[in-house]
Amino acid sequence: MNKQLQEQLQHKIDFKTKPQGSLGKLETIALKIGMIQNTLSPELKKPSMLVFAGDHGLTDEGVSAFPKEVTHQMVLNFVHGGAAINVFCKLNGIDLKVVDAGVDFDFEDYPQLIQAKIDYGTKNILKEPAMTAEQCKMAMQKGRELVAQEAEAGCNTIGFGEMGIGNTSSASLIMHKITGHSIADCTGRGTGHDAKGLQHKIDILEKAATLYQPETPLDLLATYGGFEIAMMCGAILEAKDRAMVILVDGFIVTSAFLLAHAIDNSVLNNAVFCHTSQEKGHQLMHDYLKVEGLVDLGMRLGEGSGVGVAYPIIKAAIAFLNEMASFDDAGVSNKD
Amino acid sequence: MNKQLQEQLQHKIDFKTKPQGSLGKLETIALKIGMIQNTLSPELKKPSMLVFAGDHGLTDEGVSAFPKEVTHQMVLNFVHGGAAINVFCKLNGIDLKVVDAGVDFDFEDYPQLIQAKIDYGTKNILKEPAMTAEQCKMAMQKGRELVAQEAEAGCNTIGFGEMGIGNTSSASLIMHKITGHSIADCTGRGTGHDAKGLQHKIDILEKAATLYQPETPLDLLATYGGFEIAMMCGAILEAKDRAMVILVDGFIVTSAFLLAHAIDNSVLNNAVFCHTSQEKGHQLMHDYLKVEGLVDLGMRLGEGSGVGVAYPIIKAAIAFLNEMASFDDAGVSNKD
Repeated sequence: MNKQLQEQLQHKIDFKTKPQGSLGKLETIALKIGMIQNTLSPELKKPSMLVFAGDHGLTDEGVSAFPKEVTHQMVLNFVHGGAAINVFCKLNGIDLKVVDAGVDFDFEDYPQLIQAKIDYGTKNILKEPAMTAEQCKMAMQKGRELVAQEAEAGCNTIGFGEMGIGNTSSASLIMHKITGHSIADCTGRGTGHDAKGLQHKIDILEKAATLYQPETPLDLLATYGGFEIAMMCGAILEAKDRAMVILVDGFIVTSAFLLAHAIDNSVLNNAVFCHTSQEKGHQLMHDYLKVEGLVDLGMRLGEGSGVGVAYPIIKAAIAFLNEMASFDDAGVSNKD
Repeated sequence: MNKQLQEQLQHKIDFKTKPQGSLGKLETIALKIGMIQNTLSPELKKPSMLVFAGDHGLTDEGVSAFPKEVTHQMVLNFVHGGAAINVFCKLNGIDLKVVDAGVDFDFEDYPQLIQAKIDYGTKNILKEPAMTAEQCKMAMQKGRELVAQEAEAGCNTIGFGEMGIGNTSSASLIMHKITGHSIADCTGRGTGHDAKGLQHKIDILEKAATLYQPETPLDLLATYGGFEIAMMCGAILEAKDRAMVILVDGFIVTSAFLLAHAIDNSVLNNAVFCHTSQEKGHQLMHDYLKVEGLVDLGMRLGEGSGVGVAYPIIKAAIAFLNEMASFDDAGVSNKD
């Protein structure tokens, strides 16, 4: 770590015309992004959002409150501009692309859609591992490539989102295996289970958890992951390698982050955790990583929606660092 | 209340392509602003921010960590564009005006500065009430006029901020008298007291609290208020009368809101509480009003900074309501 730059950034922050520390989390973010970009004057360039979609074989067991076809229907909603993440990205100047990582549907071509299907959904993990080791590597590699393309087009700030009926189940299992919390503590209502649906989901996941004992992050990912989660894991690692600011969303994206972190814990240096989801378990994921969500708006939608809504706060952090006057500039007396 | 409109708004929100309730506080805000504007398709028009500045005679007693001249220095910083609130308003498309409500300084004219000085600061309340009843009425009336001007220029969404060395002391006293919480619970570190400074501030405020027993909100405002707080109180009442969305900031603005609420409790219908301040007491003010801050970014700056930073989230709430597809529009299956 560049200790000298850190001190210079902190000095720049402290001598803005405000009481020290009074901009709270904005000060933390400004410092962090200055360090990521290795500069006293960071910039957020061509922010982009990749939403990865995939289907999950475990939906055969009734783990989701919504029917499986909603995955492809929502992908079509994304490419037609009608979903929440479309609205938030448009509002906040974020370039949005949707990635078919493994949806059980053949899509036509759309300008916003990247066709990167590994398979038509994962396998039912009560019967066999979600994907093969080979598929897992392919998915991670594809995630890396997509981020590399964004970086080469000038993007230095990238958010990730997801769509996949059944993918909170994958995320819960990954969380359980990495953090050691019980399945019950890792499992929430997803898109909207009632108490009975939730109990059924927990029962299924407890069964699934006992079936395999993966020993490496890649093995864990292949066993319980989704294609969208595997792609996001690769994408996060690539974004770190390219010194990008990584905008982390809710429960499922953070499960991909947990895997990336298990592979390379320095991903933490580049990550801003944008929103603490209402989905049970997300706060515990943050606690495990010893991080704090930027905002908590009571949301539990996925799609990258937490990133989409919180992004202007990150812009505000960069703006105060670059644009506010210092005590000296403004002729304002500092604390005596 | 228009029950039918409320139901229609809730239906519109519930049938967007997302699980019900999954946009959390954004859904609450969308509903609220629809009700304020009496429409299924609300709009935020010409958002503006009025920052009211005033000096406080009680600073003679050493209640602030910063010297008193910082009030006028910061007003100059505002008109030159160097303060946090300038940066946030510029970033988020909010029109910013600064109001000299009662600063102990003669300002030249600036395009962004509204000269509305009632007096050169309030009196030292250890010796006499902060202002006369006449001054209090004048200040409130001026606040009303300024909001009326904004409304007539097409603004339907207005935020309030403040600058005044010593004004957390006024706010604490107002809070104490309205909510009944002890002075110690109402008093925080302001711009940055250490433990000793805080204890001194508490001692002074306890003394001040015993000196007067005002019986009406106006009397309370005149006794302990600042000119900036009195103007904000009038401004909030006018914004309510004109069916505007009122964006409430931190501790001091909320003290003005407590007074406005004591005069007309329907102001609550129009208010969005944008940020929960780190200043001790602010959460208790929210609890008293039975409201919740939209975000908590660990800020404690004043100036309207919490409004400036949180405003894009309010825009996001309106945007999802107006722009997202419904299940029917998008051909997406709803929960079974």
